[in-house]
Amino acid sequence: MILAEPKFQGNIGAMARIMKNFGLKSLALVNPCDIGDDCLRRAMHAKDVIENAKYFESLDLAVEDLDFIAGTSGIDSKSDKKHLRNNLTPRDFASKVEEIEGSVGIVFGRESYGLYNTELEKCDTVITIPASVEYPILNISHSASIIFYELFVAHAQEKQIKEASGFERDKLMKHFCDLLDVVDYPEHKKKKTQVMFQRILGRAVLSKWEFHTLMGVFSRTLNTLNR
Amino acid sequence: MILAEPKFQGNIGAMARIMKNFGLKSLALVNPCDIGDDCLRRAMHAKDVIENAKYFESLDLAVEDLDFIAGTSGIDSKSDKKHLRNNLTPRDFASKVEEIEGSVGIVFGRESYGLYNTELEKCDTVITIPASVEYPILNISHSASIIFYELFVAHAQEKQIKEASGFERDKLMKHFCDLLDVVDYPEHKKKKTQVMFQRILGRAVLSKWEFHTLMGVFSRTLNTLNR
Repeated sequence: MILAEPKFQGNIGAMARIMKNFGLKSLALVNPCDIGDDCLRRAMHAKDVIENAKYFESLDLAVEDLDFIAGTSGIDSKSDKKHLRNNLTPRDFASKVEEIEGSVGIVFGRESYGLYNTELEKCDTVITIPASVEYPILNISHSASIIFYELFVAHAQEKQIKEASGFERDKLMKHFCDLLDVVDYPEHKKKKTQVMFQRILGRAVLSKWEFHTLMGVFSRTLNTLNR
Repeated sequence: MILAEPKFQGNIGAMARIMKNFGLKSLALVNPCDIGDDCLRRAMHAKDVIENAKYFESLDLAVEDLDFIAGTSGIDSKSDKKHLRNNLTPRDFASKVEEIEGSVGIVFGRESYGLYNTELEKCDTVITIPASVEYPILNISHSASIIFYELFVAHAQEKQIKEASGFERDKLMKHFCDLLDVVDYPEHKKKKTQVMFQRILGRAVLSKWEFHTLMGVFSRTLNTLNR
């Protein structure tokens, strides 16, 4: 996590705590305010994150070893900030992170203004949290809570999908592939359609009952077709 | 939202801000600490939430007009708190809320100890945020950020599913029902299986391309079966 020029030490402490809550450790601070008691008090049991934080004189230096950089930006209709086209929701970002190999950094901007356009342009993507149009600007550690939570959940889900339900999902995929064969599905579209089906299953996170019911529908269909 | 005996006015302000960020307005305070400048400073543009807050002398009084009460509880292996069986993740809770008719309240406990067992027992459900086993206890306004965000996203998604993709989903559902008919799916299981398929589609939030590809697979299957 990279904080660009944070002004309030309480926010740095709050950020450290929510990082540790979701198993994140590496905090980089670019020209921060002074850090004292208020920061450590807010960090609670995450004082080690503050103690191990790295300090940088510029954002460029803080991100130079990273493979993928995500900026964060609020929805702000009143500002003159460019609306960058590739903004992601925290959930979409979290599922993207699961695909990225290498180190990922998330940059949070100043409490007053966020990140400058020149800084956002250096990022590979920008995360924006969907919020009320009436007051869409979140406190920095609240934004972080939501983004880190999505990363944590996506990672746990990916693990679960890969491990626990692997056997059932494979069986369901096999049935789906058999179906495509039996109905003479165009050969050149098969692979793409299989991957799509796998992704849909991944997103829907089926329960055991749903798996078995879907398996039943497939079996019946295949049996009828093969009769 | 109901805060039970909050001790730090900064947390009340932070709570007000994140409530307004996600379009929530009604704040109830049960025996709070004194509220002053620190609270209003943290509330930022959500001072109206603080000004319109209602005060209660007991949690029972604060929740008496609600139809559904959700408590919040951290994962705390060291405490003697009973692990209640019906704990929900914020995401599951948010999708449950979409089904509930009537007024829903979420109760947040004391910063030091959370909610007492006797209080949790009065709740219809308990929300627990999945977090790192090393340090799973979140700050109160961070917990709130995640829960309110999930409510906001689920509500927007539900609306989107209901409105925009209604036509396509209906077509896909029609194909699925036709398939069940053609393969002589047991009559008494049909309704349940249709509802299940509808829910899977809802959770998976299909893109247009995915809809059309799945439609293609169904059409081909039905054509082959009807030949």
